[in-house]
Amino acid sequence: MSGHHPQESWESWNSRDSTTIREEETFELGEDGDLQGNPPKKSAMKYKDGSSIDWLHEEALERERDYVKKSQKSIRSLLSIWADSARVWLVVVATGIGIGVAGAWLDVLVKWLGDLREGRCQAGFFYNQVSCCSGLDPGEFCTDWQSWSEYFSVRSIFAQSLLQSSIYVTLAVLFSGSAAFLVNIYAPYAFHTGIPEIKAILGGYVFDAFLTPWTLLIKALGLALAVASGLSLGKEGPLVHVACCMAYMLSRFFNQFKHSEAQKRKLLAAAAAAGVSVAFGSPLGGVIFCLEELDTFALESDVMWRGFVASAIAAVSLQYIDPFGTSKLVLFQVTSGGDTWRAFELIPWLTLGVIGGVLGSLLIKLNVEIALYRKNSVLNQYPILEVATVSAITAAIAYLVVFTRVQSSELVANLFQECDPARGDYHGLCNPTAMWENVFLLLISAAIKLVLTAWTFGMMVPAGIFLPTIAIGACIGRAVGMLTQSIQTAYPKAWLFLSCPPDPTIRCVSPGFYSVIGASAMLGGVTRMTVSLVVILFELTGALSHVLPIMVGVMSAKWVGDALGEDGIYNVWIAMRQYPFIPPVDYNDRGRTAADAMRPFGTLVKIQEGHSTLKDIENLTNKYDFHGFPVVRGRDLIGYATRNKLLSFLGLHLSADTSIKKCRFSSPKQQLPSVENNIDLTACLENSILHLRKEVPQAVVVRMFQKMNLHQILFTHRGQLDGMLTKADVVSLLAAHFPHTGALSAENER
Amino acid sequence: MSGHHPQESWESWNSRDSTTIREEETFELGEDGDLQGNPPKKSAMKYKDGSSIDWLHEEALERERDYVKKSQKSIRSLLSIWADSARVWLVVVATGIGIGVAGAWLDVLVKWLGDLREGRCQAGFFYNQVSCCSGLDPGEFCTDWQSWSEYFSVRSIFAQSLLQSSIYVTLAVLFSGSAAFLVNIYAPYAFHTGIPEIKAILGGYVFDAFLTPWTLLIKALGLALAVASGLSLGKEGPLVHVACCMAYMLSRFFNQFKHSEAQKRKLLAAAAAAGVSVAFGSPLGGVIFCLEELDTFALESDVMWRGFVASAIAAVSLQYIDPFGTSKLVLFQVTSGGDTWRAFELIPWLTLGVIGGVLGSLLIKLNVEIALYRKNSVLNQYPILEVATVSAITAAIAYLVVFTRVQSSELVANLFQECDPARGDYHGLCNPTAMWENVFLLLISAAIKLVLTAWTFGMMVPAGIFLPTIAIGACIGRAVGMLTQSIQTAYPKAWLFLSCPPDPTIRCVSPGFYSVIGASAMLGGVTRMTVSLVVILFELTGALSHVLPIMVGVMSAKWVGDALGEDGIYNVWIAMRQYPFIPPVDYNDRGRTAADAMRPFGTLVKIQEGHSTLKDIENLTNKYDFHGFPVVRGRDLIGYATRNKLLSFLGLHLSADTSIKKCRFSSPKQQLPSVENNIDLTACLENSILHLRKEVPQAVVVRMFQKMNLHQILFTHRGQLDGMLTKADVVSLLAAHFPHTGALSAENER
Repeated sequence: MSGHHPQESWESWNSRDSTTIREEETFELGEDGDLQGNPPKKSAMKYKDGSSIDWLHEEALERERDYVKKSQKSIRSLLSIWADSARVWLVVVATGIGIGVAGAWLDVLVKWLGDLREGRCQAGFFYNQVSCCSGLDPGEFCTDWQSWSEYFSVRSIFAQSLLQSSIYVTLAVLFSGSAAFLVNIYAPYAFHTGIPEIKAILGGYVFDAFLTPWTLLIKALGLALAVASGLSLGKEGPLVHVACCMAYMLSRFFNQFKHSEAQKRKLLAAAAAAGVSVAFGSPLGGVIFCLEELDTFALESDVMWRGFVASAIAAVSLQYIDPFGTSKLVLFQVTSGGDTWRAFELIPWLTLGVIGGVLGSLLIKLNVEIALYRKNSVLNQYPILEVATVSAITAAIAYLVVFTRVQSSELVANLFQECDPARGDYHGLCNPTAMWENVFLLLISAAIKLVLTAWTFGMMVPAGIFLPTIAIGACIGRAVGMLTQSIQTAYPKAWLFLSCPPDPTIRCVSPGFYSVIGASAMLGGVTRMTVSLVVILFELTGALSHVLPIMVGVMSAKWVGDALGEDGIYNVWIAMRQYPFIPPVDYNDRGRTAADAMRPFGTLVKIQEGHSTLKDIENLTNKYDFHGFPVVRGRDLIGYATRNKLLSFLGLHLSADTSIKKCRFSSPKQQLPSVENNIDLTACLENSILHLRKEVPQAVVVRMFQKMNLHQILFTHRGQLDGMLTKADVVSLLAAHFPHTGALSAENER
Repeated sequence: MSGHHPQESWESWNSRDSTTIREEETFELGEDGDLQGNPPKKSAMKYKDGSSIDWLHEEALERERDYVKKSQKSIRSLLSIWADSARVWLVVVATGIGIGVAGAWLDVLVKWLGDLREGRCQAGFFYNQVSCCSGLDPGEFCTDWQSWSEYFSVRSIFAQSLLQSSIYVTLAVLFSGSAAFLVNIYAPYAFHTGIPEIKAILGGYVFDAFLTPWTLLIKALGLALAVASGLSLGKEGPLVHVACCMAYMLSRFFNQFKHSEAQKRKLLAAAAAAGVSVAFGSPLGGVIFCLEELDTFALESDVMWRGFVASAIAAVSLQYIDPFGTSKLVLFQVTSGGDTWRAFELIPWLTLGVIGGVLGSLLIKLNVEIALYRKNSVLNQYPILEVATVSAITAAIAYLVVFTRVQSSELVANLFQECDPARGDYHGLCNPTAMWENVFLLLISAAIKLVLTAWTFGMMVPAGIFLPTIAIGACIGRAVGMLTQSIQTAYPKAWLFLSCPPDPTIRCVSPGFYSVIGASAMLGGVTRMTVSLVVILFELTGALSHVLPIMVGVMSAKWVGDALGEDGIYNVWIAMRQYPFIPPVDYNDRGRTAADAMRPFGTLVKIQEGHSTLKDIENLTNKYDFHGFPVVRGRDLIGYATRNKLLSFLGLHLSADTSIKKCRFSSPKQQLPSVENNIDLTACLENSILHLRKEVPQAVVVRMFQKMNLHQILFTHRGQLDGMLTKADVVSLLAAHFPHTGALSAENER
C-alpha cells in the first residue's frame, strides 16, 4: 500500500464532511421515531455524510424487519407489508411522473430563455418563438415575433447587429451568472453533472446533502439558466441528479426509507434510470445505463424492474406533455432509417472511431488539467466571475461561427438530418458548392466546442457532458461524411465505390448518418460506455441495420481511448474527488496477493480481549473514527466489533468501574483472570465477517468487494489475525494508476 | 438439512453422468496439447459431466494465463493476446450470423412442411404456398398451389374433407414421429426447451454432452419437424439451445476455450442472447433476457457487450435473409400503435393479469403432474408412440376448431391485429354478429391449447413453451377484448365509458391490443419474468404508450402467480431435474443461520494433518468423489485441498512408503513427531477459501454463493472448523420448498 495509509484516509472521509457538509442538511422530516410512535430500532446504524454504508449490516437489518413483520400473522402486519410495498411503488411512480414533468418544463423554459436572447413575442412576453408563431398558415410570415432590433426599431444594419450581438452576449452572461450565483450561494452540490456522486452514493457512499430539495430546486433552475446561456453543456447528467433528488425528497415522507440506507439506494437507482430516460427519450437506454454505468442492479433483481417502471413512466409523462408539440420522444429524430450502407464505409467509420477515441481522451485530459488549474490558481476565489467570463467568450465566439450560434441540441438535430431539398437547408450545410467551407467550419466548431467543453465541465454551474460531446462528434462526423461523399461523387467509378448505385442522383453516402457515428464514437471516447450508448443511439435512429455501424464506432473509440488513458470521464472525476466507489472493472493484480495490500496486524487498531477495559474502548472510539475494530486475544481473532455497537453499548454501561472491568467476548470464562472483573461485550460482535487467507490473489479480494458490497475483509491463518482490508483500501488500490487521485477531494479543499 | 445428505447428492451428481452421458461426447478436436505443441497445463482442472465448475479456481487460472502473457513483453505474446481476443470475437460474430441464418432457414422449412400438410405446389415440390403464389397480380387466382384433394382430383365434398383431414393428421404424426425418433435415437438431450439446462450450464454446471454438434443438428431438424407437425410448442427456447450448441462447436476449434470453463460460459451467454434475439426478432430483448432469466452478466462486464453484439448481428442476419419477404423482423407486427387507451380499460387488463397468473400456475402444475405421470407410468417406455399419439390428437382437434387449425404463430399474428375492413377478416373474428360464437371458440381454443401444451412440453421432441403460452394468452385476451368492446358499444353512455369518443364509428376498445396484454399476462404467469417480457413485447408493438398496459398485465400476473406457486416453469424443471443451479432470488431464511444448514464437523470427510498418510488420501479420493476435502489438525482448520490437486500430487509421489509418511501442510515442523517421516502437501491447498462464522444468517451465505459463484464455504470459530456448506447444499436449500425436487433427475432414471 505504497505510502498511502488506508485507515487514515478512511478516517479523514469520516471526519471531514461532518463539518463541511452537515450544515447543508437542513431537510429533516420530523423526529426519528416511527410513525406509530415506536422508538427507533436500537440496531439501526447512523451514518455520517462522507462515510460508506455497511451493506451486509443494512441488508441484515432489512431481513430482520421483514422477518418480524412476516412472522406476525396478524392482519395488521399483513397490511403493513402491503403498505411498505405500496409506498415503494408510490415513490417510484411519483418520481417517474415528476421527472417527466420536470424534464418537459425544463425544455420549455430553456427554449423560452434561449429565444429571449434573440427577440421577444409581441403577443406575450412568455411565448417562445415557436409558440409565438404557431397557428400560421404555411407561407404566412410571422409578425408577432420581433428581434430586439425590430423591437427597438433600429434601422442601420451595423447598429442592428451590434445591438443583437450585445443583447445576445449580455443575456448569456446574465443567465450563466445567475446560475453560478444560485449554485454558489444556495447549493454548492448542484454544480457539475452529478453522475460521479450518484455512482458513489449508489455504491454505498453516504452523501445526503447531495440530495436535498434545495439542491433539487437550484440544480433544475440553474440548469435551465446554464443551458439557455449557450454554455457548452448539456442537461442529461444533471437530470439524473434531479431525478435522484426527487426520489430522495419523496422517500423522506416515509419512515421505512429513512431507516434503511439500502432501500433508499434502490429507490435512487430507479430514479436514475428515469432521469436518463427523460434526458434522451430512451426508456430502455435508461435501464441499460443504470446497469452498465451505475452498476446498480447488482443490488437486487427487483431493482431492475423498478428502474424500468420508473423509466417507462417518465418517458410516457414526457411524451404526454409533449413540450414541443412534435409528439416525438427523442430530441434528435434521425430520418435516414431506410438507407442501407456499403462495406467501404467501414473505413471512414473506423476513422471516426479512432478520432473519437483520441479526442475523447484529449477532452478528459484537458478537463482534468483545467480542473487542477482552477483549483490551484486564483480562479478558485471567483467562481461566478469565471462562469460569466467563459459564458461571454462562448457567446461571442458562438455569434461568429454559424454552427455554434444555435443551441447544441438544435445543431445536433440538424447535423443528424440528411440533405433533402424538400425540407430546406440547415445553416447552408446542404449547399454542394460550399463543401470545403462547410467542412472547415464544422472542424473549427468542433475544436472550439472541445476546448470550451473541457473548461465548462467543472465550473460552478450544473453541466452535463453528453450533449457537448455529441455535438463535437456530430460536427466531425458530418465533416468526414461530406468528405467521403465528395470523394465518392468525384470518382464514382473507383473500385471502392462499385457497390454504390450507378445512378448519380441516388445518394450513396449519407453524411447525416456519419454524424450519428461521429457522435457515438466521441461519446465512446469520453464516457467509455458501450451497450448503453448503443442502445440510446439505437433508440434515436430506430433502424436496426444502423446498429452495427454505431457499434463499430463506439467500440473502436473505446479501444483507442482505453489505450490512451484508462478511464471514462466520470470515473476520473470520482478518483479526483476521492469518493469511496469501487468501479466494476476487472482488476489486474499482476500476481500480487492480498498480503501486499492489507494493513498488517501490527498497524491495526485492535481491541484486546481480557486486556482492554470499557474505558480503553471509550478512548478508542473517541480517538478513531473507524467503522469498527477487530477484537483479538493475543493474535487469535475473536471477531469484529463495529464502532456503532460499541458506542451504544458504552452508552448503556458507562459507570464508575469502567476502567477496571476487562472486556470479554464470549470466551470461555476460565481463560480470564477473574470472572467478576469482566464484562460481556459479545453483543457488539458482527456476525457477517469474512475471513480469507492472505495468500488469496488481489483480484479475488477486489471481486468480493465489488460483488458483495463488503465493508472489510479480515485475513487469518489458522485462526490468527494477519491483517485487514477495508473498502477504502480497495478504492485506493483501484485508483492507484490515476495520477491525480484525490486532487479535488473535499479534504484538500480546506 | 432435513434428511437430505448434501455431500452424498454431490457425489451422485459426479458419478451418475460419467456412465450415462460420457458416451454421447464423441466430438473431440485433437488432443489436449496446446497448438504450439506444449503439454497441457498441469493446473487446468478436468471436470466430469454432471459436476460444477469451481469459478474461483477457473478465474484464477485465467488471470494466471493473462498475467504470464502480459508479462512477456515480446511481440509474440502481444500477438497472442490479440489473437485470443480476435478468436473470441470471431466465435461471437460467427455464432450471431449462424443463428440468424439457422433461424431464417428454420422458418422457411417450417412454413414449407406446414403447407405440405394442406397441399402442394405444381411449379415445384419445394415451394411453400406463399412463394408458390408469389408474383401474381392482386385479384389473380393462384392456380399453381393445389390442395391435396385437387391434386388427387377428388370431387365429392365428403371425400375431399376426409382426404384433406387424413393427410393433415397423417403428416402431423409422421413429422412429429420422425422428430421424436431422431431425438430418441441420436440425441436424447435435444428434447424439451433446453433453457433450464442452459441456465444450469451458465451457472457452472458441466454438461458438455448437451452441446454437441449432433445435438445441434437433431435439435434444429427435430424442431422444424415438431413445429410443422402442429404440436402445441414453439421454437423460441430450442433456438437458444441451438445457438449455444453453435457457439460451443465453434469454440472447440480453439484451444483457449477448451482449457477454460469460464471463457466457454461467457461465449455461451452471448450465444443465448443471440438465440432469443432471433427467436423474437428482438435484439434488446435478447440482452435483457440473458440478464434477467439467465443471470449471466453477473459474470463479467464485457459479457453484456458480447451478448449485445451477437444479438444485434443475429437480428441483422435474420433481417437480411428475410425469410418471408416482409422485411419485418418481428413475427407478430402490431398495428394498433397509434391508438390511445382509457383509464377504464385498466379493469379488463387487471382481470387479464389475474387470469394469466392463475392459468400460468395451473399450466405449470399440470405440466409437472404430467411429467411425473409420464416418468412413473408405462408411457416412459414408448416416448415415440406418445409423441405420435399426442400429435394425432392435436391434429384431429386442430382440424375441428378453426382457431387451432392454423399454425400458432399465424394465429397469434392475426389475433394481435385490429379488425380493419380494408385488410379482410381473419377466421371470421371480425364478424360483429358472431361475437358470442367467437368468444366461445376462443376460450375453447385456449383451454384445448392449455391442456395440450402442458402435455407436449416435456415429451421427447424439441419444444418451447413461449409460443403456445402466447397463443393461449392471445385467445383469452382477444375474448376479453371483444366482450369489453361489446359492453362498451351496448352502453356507450355509461359513466365508465365517458372517456370514449362520442362518435360510435370510432373504435374505443381495441381487442387486438387486449390480445397482446393477454399474451403478456400469460407469459408472466408461466415464466415469472418481468423486464425481458416487457422489452420483448415492447419491441413487438413499438408503441411506447402501450408499455404501461403491458407492464400492468405482466406484473399482476406475476404477483398472482407467485402467490399461487413459487417458481416459473424453467426453475421448476431445474428443480425436478436437480441441476446445481442457484437461482438469483432473495432467500428468506426466517431467521435461521448457517449453523442450521451446514454439514457439521463430525460428518465431514477430512484429511487429518499429521495422521493421514498418502495411502489414506488415496483411499479417500477413491472412495469419495467430492470436489475437495477440508484439512484439519484436531479441530483446527489448516486449509482445503481439492481432489484434483491431491490426485495429481499422488500421481507424482506414489511410491513404496506411502503408508508410512504422514501428510504435512506447511505446519511448523516441530509439531510433527518426526521430520523424516512426513511429506509436504502444501501445494495441494487452495488459496481462495472463504471462512465465515456459523452465526451468519443463511441469506448472507446464499447471497455469497449467488454473487461469487462459490463452490464451498467453510465455517470456523477461532480457527476451529465448525462445518462446511457446498453449492449442492445451497441448491437443495433453495429448492426445498418445491415438492418434486429431483423427481426427474438422471439419478432417478436408473
